[in-house]
Amino acid sequence: MNETTREHGITIGSMPIGERNQITDVPGVTVGHYTLNKNRVQTGVTAILPHQGNLFQKKTVASAHVINGFGKTAGTIQLEELGTLETPIILTNTFGVGAAYDALVAYTLERNQEIGRATGTVNPVIGECNDMYINDIREQAVTKEHVLQAIADAEDHFKEGCVGAGRGMLCYSLKGGIGSSSRKVQLAHGTYTIGVLTLTNFGKLSDLRIDGQPVGQKLKDCIQAEEEKDRGSIMIVVATDLPVSHRQLKRICKRTVTGLSRTGAMIGNGSGDVVLGFSTATIITHEKPEETITFSSIHEEDMDEAFRAVGEATEESILESLFQATPVTGRDNHQRPTLTELLERYPIKF
Amino acid sequence: MNETTREHGITIGSMPIGERNQITDVPGVTVGHYTLNKNRVQTGVTAILPHQGNLFQKKTVASAHVINGFGKTAGTIQLEELGTLETPIILTNTFGVGAAYDALVAYTLERNQEIGRATGTVNPVIGECNDMYINDIREQAVTKEHVLQAIADAEDHFKEGCVGAGRGMLCYSLKGGIGSSSRKVQLAHGTYTIGVLTLTNFGKLSDLRIDGQPVGQKLKDCIQAEEEKDRGSIMIVVATDLPVSHRQLKRICKRTVTGLSRTGAMIGNGSGDVVLGFSTATIITHEKPEETITFSSIHEEDMDEAFRAVGEATEESILESLFQATPVTGRDNHQRPTLTELLERYPIKF
Amino acid sequence: MNETTREHGITIGSMPIGERNQITDVPGVTVGHYTLNKNRVQTGVTAILPHQGNLFQKKTVASAHVINGFGKTAGTIQLEELGTLETPIILTNTFGVGAAYDALVAYTLERNQEIGRATGTVNPVIGECNDMYINDIREQAVTKEHVLQAIADAEDHFKEGCVGAGRGMLCYSLKGGIGSSSRKVQLAHGTYTIGVLTLTNFGKLSDLRIDGQPVGQKLKDCIQAEEEKDRGSIMIVVATDLPVSHRQLKRICKRTVTGLSRTGAMIGNGSGDVVLGFSTATIITHEKPEETITFSSIHEEDMDEAFRAVGEATEESILESLFQATPVTGRDNHQRPTLTELLERYPIKF
Amino acid sequence: MNETTREHGITIGSMPIGERNQITDVPGVTVGHYTLNKNRVQTGVTAILPHQGNLFQKKTVASAHVINGFGKTAGTIQLEELGTLETPIILTNTFGVGAAYDALVAYTLERNQEIGRATGTVNPVIGECNDMYINDIREQAVTKEHVLQAIADAEDHFKEGCVGAGRGMLCYSLKGGIGSSSRKVQLAHGTYTIGVLTLTNFGKLSDLRIDGQPVGQKLKDCIQAEEEKDRGSIMIVVATDLPVSHRQLKRICKRTVTGLSRTGAMIGNGSGDVVLGFSTATIITHEKPEETITFSSIHEEDMDEAFRAVGEATEESILESLFQATPVTGRDNHQRPTLTELLERYPIKF
Repeated sequence: MNETTREHGITIGSMPIGERNQITDVPGVTVGHYTLNKNRVQTGVTAILPHQGNLFQKKTVASAHVINGFGKTAGTIQLEELGTLETPIILTNTFGVGAAYDALVAYTLERNQEIGRATGTVNPVIGECNDMYINDIREQAVTKEHVLQAIADAEDHFKEGCVGAGRGMLCYSLKGGIGSSSRKVQLAHGTYTIGVLTLTNFGKLSDLRIDGQPVGQKLKDCIQAEEEKDRGSIMIVVATDLPVSHRQLKRICKRTVTGLSRTGAMIGNGSGDVVLGFSTATIITHEKPEETITFSSIHEEDMDEAFRAVGEATEESILESLFQATPVTGRDNHQRPTLTELLERYPIKF
Repeated sequence: MNETTREHGITIGSMPIGERNQITDVPGVTVGHYTLNKNRVQTGVTAILPHQGNLFQKKTVASAHVINGFGKTAGTIQLEELGTLETPIILTNTFGVGAAYDALVAYTLERNQEIGRATGTVNPVIGECNDMYINDIREQAVTKEHVLQAIADAEDHFKEGCVGAGRGMLCYSLKGGIGSSSRKVQLAHGTYTIGVLTLTNFGKLSDLRIDGQPVGQKLKDCIQAEEEKDRGSIMIVVATDLPVSHRQLKRICKRTVTGLSRTGAMIGNGSGDVVLGFSTATIITHEKPEETITFSSIHEEDMDEAFRAVGEATEESILESLFQATPVTGRDNHQRPTLTELLERYPIKF
Repeated sequence: MNETTREHGITIGSMPIGERNQITDVPGVTVGHYTLNKNRVQTGVTAILPHQGNLFQKKTVASAHVINGFGKTAGTIQLEELGTLETPIILTNTFGVGAAYDALVAYTLERNQEIGRATGTVNPVIGECNDMYINDIREQAVTKEHVLQAIADAEDHFKEGCVGAGRGMLCYSLKGGIGSSSRKVQLAHGTYTIGVLTLTNFGKLSDLRIDGQPVGQKLKDCIQAEEEKDRGSIMIVVATDLPVSHRQLKRICKRTVTGLSRTGAMIGNGSGDVVLGFSTATIITHEKPEETITFSSIHEEDMDEAFRAVGEATEESILESLFQATPVTGRDNHQRPTLTELLERYPIKF
Repeated sequence: MNETTREHGITIGSMPIGERNQITDVPGVTVGHYTLNKNRVQTGVTAILPHQGNLFQKKTVASAHVINGFGKTAGTIQLEELGTLETPIILTNTFGVGAAYDALVAYTLERNQEIGRATGTVNPVIGECNDMYINDIREQAVTKEHVLQAIADAEDHFKEGCVGAGRGMLCYSLKGGIGSSSRKVQLAHGTYTIGVLTLTNFGKLSDLRIDGQPVGQKLKDCIQAEEEKDRGSIMIVVATDLPVSHRQLKRICKRTVTGLSRTGAMIGNGSGDVVLGFSTATIITHEKPEETITFSSIHEEDMDEAFRAVGEATEESILESLFQATPVTGRDNHQRPTLTELLERYPIKF
């Protein structure tokens, strides 16, 4: 494993991080990867599970936010209408969405025999980025089985960098992939965690900022690379155990853009930037209870802490995807330098 | 008072109505009017209060929905962001919005000395329609004092028809104005009320349907009037004591369009059709408490009853605005027939 | 073929219809079905093509509108962000969305070798309803090949009723399916067409209104059926050759709810009601031209005609799906009466 | 006049600026201020005019975007529905919105005698921030006349800093106010300008970043001030002569958040952050023409340049509001240091 952002001496923001500094610091959350690594096929699947029970029977409060809609994320219409998540969240490449959809249907049908008989259907939630530069995306290599395996392998410790859905992604013209970070939120009534996982695949080198420093411009001057077009996207998954309503969670999801922007993003036309969030604090049962449902939620005045936390965790999560990236060679010998490599060649003091 | 829709033998839908069949069947809700009736000036103000306490200190869960945005409703941005209402809702003519804004600020400042000192400001919520055909709207006749008087006069019994903001409005080329209706919602855990108040100012005669019957077309054939352009708008206020979240309340507000459509509306280009809703079941205090806030809410499966109720109440409320309308003569002797007059001249069996 | 709505003596609205009274009255639009009819498997696919050229290279102006988001429609995020459609629209059952996604990717890759190489990916647009009562939806019977066949079979004449995606659908507790209708819009600068195709799968019998008449309540009294829960959804596809911007087209799509409501819909909680619209009047090329793009659009004051047209065509299209439905027996011998059958047994004068 | 951001040696981004580096670099745009400066009353009005003709008769393409909705901006519902602006944009304090509404109605009525007679009404567009710390906002000191004077005084050269609506505002715990900046956008078919004007009233000192540097944290350590709560808001006005549709303009408006975030904003709960944009490239006449309207627009692939431009101009505009701020003492002798003062006392090298 590469050194982390913090091991490089870079501290993003001022709030305390969770134990692992990962999305899985939110109790119950697990993450699994399935990585495809065969010549031209450099891609994969990442699964995020909000808890370890029956996700369809015990839904979590959830929300989605579209920063830029040039993307194919599935399942957000129902997520927004009902404010709940009822499947694992799957991240994969753009042409793997169909396979992921089928996999989430199969996964849920197996665990819920009443679906399609005594009760309705299920809403698969899938995010994607386009990894066509390194991966031969035209192969449509991701299958239902890969997705089911990623779900089955989900754990509370997980790898970052060029694994799972992050395998073939690029970020700021460097090798991108999966990054994660978390923050502790201390309120009068308790301490909570906000965790973020990003699948990074956007930006051009000269825009990259690390804790405000124009590192990308400096590196670009060093390597004298021709500037490339800003393409691709970022998927941001936000998990928390803060007791929040759908509306409040949406407000939190929107604040990821502050962290994204601080790494230098211009949110380009072609970048499908989508945020998917859930809170494990309130479980909504699929079956209607006799009584009304009782929720807890924080007061709006406490949102500031959550906003700061999610901004910091998003910023660090993106940097982490860069620092954890490892060299990958894909179709037509395409590859991109990793941030670690460049910093070894052209040291910058943070 | 004219005969009601039900006294004409017309029963909209199948659900039971509240005691008064008015929005004030929701406990705590009151409505007040101030009517201007001087020659060319035929306009006014209608105020809806969600409860009788300090509205700024004790906010109600609230939501807004824009059916068609050709309108100048104020306050919806914050209502949607925070999901709460903190002033009376004021309805008036389009050029009275400024006066209503000033009045709601003054009203709230007087009752909350800490505003602008120890705490922030207040979000006035104001809906409007354009009554320019009967009223000389260029006069900008509505003042801050009129608005404050409408609030002061709010009661749980209130008049419908050509009073308050409804004074100069037209609906389906007939005299429109204020209408109201309510429905009882019976769920396993209790009986709740949904009340609707409409300020009607839209449509053309040939489109009017009463309980599905093409009454407007029949009347138009009788009076051989030239068809007029569909202009104007409708403001729909939804009140309930159902325990619902902001998200759920928004879903309920959206269903008003079923009732609106069933009266024949095409939702014309120039019609600024806006819904403002609140639930009195949960009060959010302005001051942050030590602990988290606890909410109740119904399960999503119980929403169907609320959807039916609000659709029926909206449909009946619009009809009520027509049946309660009385003759008004305004600028340049403009006037419009009332539905009651026409039905006396050209009886139609319901 | 059954008698049409108009052959039953029912005329919805006042505007003139197109030649076929189908969505394909919009020049260039074609529709194809693939129907699965094997014992427990009663389902299918319907494809709508906006024009006969390369849909990816020549995108149409498009928009989506969510009436109720309890549904899994794919592709709306990008449709709304970019305002364009670049694939056929596929309608199928809820668990066929994955297969349809794969099919639209394959279809587009085959016709555009530069995708995933020199240019980005493609945004598949897929609508769905849940046909679980008649169809064994757990079988996930729809395949990529079925979808490709539906596209290949698209023509300007097409069947309505229990074909394609409509095979297993229910509407107002009767047999539902595919319906279509169109209207001519006459403006100062030309005559245009608005066509609607609906996949109907919602409502309960007692709510059904035909041209305002409470036909559903009457039929329910006759057959003394126990009332069923309102489940399911409606997918509404709007096509036009009106020159409109994305924003204007969205306004038109929103007006479908007037027609939907007039058939009696309460827009139930579980009903995923989504509108997908496109205009063929302006083609946006995938490749960036040297110059700016030139559009035509109607003035906002002309929107009223379009609003009326789409409301009428939606209402008639839903009725047409009922009148064209034929008996289907599916899993566990489930079936529903058709409207035609019931009206033969219990005649109602229109 | 203080030194500008650039005179301090700080260059935000890489794109060329316009002649004045102000929003008025967009041809036709003018800005006027009215400043109230009497003891406890330290507030004002800023007016932005999109062109010098009759704004109601010749509407500009326009869009609004809500970054955070804890605010009272008026007029956005219609702006979004119709995609046009038909009045000057007024910025003022929160309790001046009513006066501004009345002023815009009066302004428009005077110039358009047919309003309220032969044509409908007008949609006033007003943004606001809460200046209660320095200004005695409870006085409601802004009048209709002040607003009309600000409009009358609009010119293509205008002051920045503590003038007009910016008089009493705070930003990053320092004195804030009005800032502006512009960027040139070079495309194959021409060179265009994007200008931004901000009314800044948000943030806390320790968050302030100048071109990525943590200047705020350094200054806070120097002055050893107690940290204050992040309150207040930002209003961002975007002007351009790029030929863009409403949808495209909205995408541009959304990108202001990248610049805002890069100055250190966390977009706090209480910050009503709203963007109002217009393009002068296409004029929509109030009166319907005989023919369809013809638009030009850029291809979506050219949006990246506009996105970068608006992000850079927003970032610089916020900094400019800080650098141009001058000392203001208001109610209860409240005041805040200016950035210039602090940098003189505690020099930081950029």
